[in-house]
Amino acid sequence: MISKRILKLIKSLQQKKYRKKYKLFLVEGGKNILELLSTHFSIRTLIATPVFIEVHKDLINKHEVAEIISTDEKQLSTASTLKSNNAAIAIVEIPENLPYQSSPGAYELVLDDINDPGNLGTILRIADWYGIPQIICSPETTDLYSPKVISASMGSFLRVNVFYMDLESFFKKNRKPVYAAYAAAGENVHTLNFSKEGVLLMGSESHGIHPRYAKYVNCSVHIPSYGKAESLNVSIATSVICDNMRRLSE
Amino acid sequence: MISKRILKLIKSLQQKKYRKKYKLFLVEGGKNILELLSTHFSIRTLIATPVFIEVHKDLINKHEVAEIISTDEKQLSTASTLKSNNAAIAIVEIPENLPYQSSPGAYELVLDDINDPGNLGTILRIADWYGIPQIICSPETTDLYSPKVISASMGSFLRVNVFYMDLESFFKKNRKPVYAAYAAAGENVHTLNFSKEGVLLMGSESHGIHPRYAKYVNCSVHIPSYGKAESLNVSIATSVICDNMRRLSE
Repeated sequence: MISKRILKLIKSLQQKKYRKKYKLFLVEGGKNILELLSTHFSIRTLIATPVFIEVHKDLINKHEVAEIISTDEKQLSTASTLKSNNAAIAIVEIPENLPYQSSPGAYELVLDDINDPGNLGTILRIADWYGIPQIICSPETTDLYSPKVISASMGSFLRVNVFYMDLESFFKKNRKPVYAAYAAAGENVHTLNFSKEGVLLMGSESHGIHPRYAKYVNCSVHIPSYGKAESLNVSIATSVICDNMRRLSE
Repeated sequence: MISKRILKLIKSLQQKKYRKKYKLFLVEGGKNILELLSTHFSIRTLIATPVFIEVHKDLINKHEVAEIISTDEKQLSTASTLKSNNAAIAIVEIPENLPYQSSPGAYELVLDDINDPGNLGTILRIADWYGIPQIICSPETTDLYSPKVISASMGSFLRVNVFYMDLESFFKKNRKPVYAAYAAAGENVHTLNFSKEGVLLMGSESHGIHPRYAKYVNCSVHIPSYGKAESLNVSIATSVICDNMRRLSE
């Protein structure tokens, strides 16, 4: 059974201010938790069905989870932000912010004020698929540790480093070529001569890339359109550009 | 002011059974409604701010909207399924189902049980971007007229034809080559010799493509991975394949 104290804590962690206050966040769903158990993230409390605990007992014991609570699917789904959760919820310590370091030879993503948690989570999964080790987010970008971001990332938040920092200071230090996505201007992403390493800057869904960063951009890119939609969703545009980037930079 | 009767109707149209009963659906937000006003969709009721009505009065008059209700942003946001709505909501008649007809020379998308409304809406937008005129959905695919699908499509539901039909009967009649997306098997999408026209079959987020359709598939395709994510979200995979398909079939 989940105590009132734990239920209250879980509900509070849906809000950024409490995640910041307690330095904790939620990981939900079987697949995410199994991946979590294979990492060094510190799990404060694991709430799971008896079946989940029994099946994965070796993994759980190995991880040294501080507190384990067994409960039924109904209570789990009530506590969870997921529509249905038949496996587990973990309350996890937010790791210390490490200072940003460049990743030589790789591409990095820079996100300018991405507001939608689903988009940020999906972009983490895209980065993980295309072997992009790091994402730099403007301070206004939605919080990495929100339950929607974590769920949409399908475990990729465990493998991709995310840094929140002022983008001006990032660009001033950056030595890699900067590619920036625009809806209707710049080089055709299908034929561009992408360099071996670089930075891809993506703008927000509603405002695009802020003009203040234009001076740091070495190459504007666009995705050719064959129909009538005015634009693509930012995570969709990120995936299409990353796919062409990896194909053309090999 | 929105009357209780209209508010109740709006709330009920968030559920599929009432959309089916009343043959009505909701279109929300300024951009979607402006695009809607330029089509032949029959608008039963338009609820909008005085500013929206004043600025777009010519378009509204031209469309012969049956009923216009003026209200403030606060009441509009309360009625809306969107987080905030500072423009308008329209109650729109669901058009008659037309029988499926093939679109010669074009690609078509076939969706096997896509459950997430956000994914379906995003796929409509992708189809619209890549000039894919038609989407065939299995009967179990989420409802096109759900508010989340309509919103995520960003107006593309007005330009892409969507048919719900038994996929077996579709494939039996289909004469175009069938490409099917698999996570880790098949031809590399980067180098495939795509034909000029075809059908792209995408499986559900959780179960993939049902084995019963395997006999209709002429070519399996996969997206090369450069990292560690196990899979991509279905709308992301659709966009990457469509992008390569249009690039390679020209």
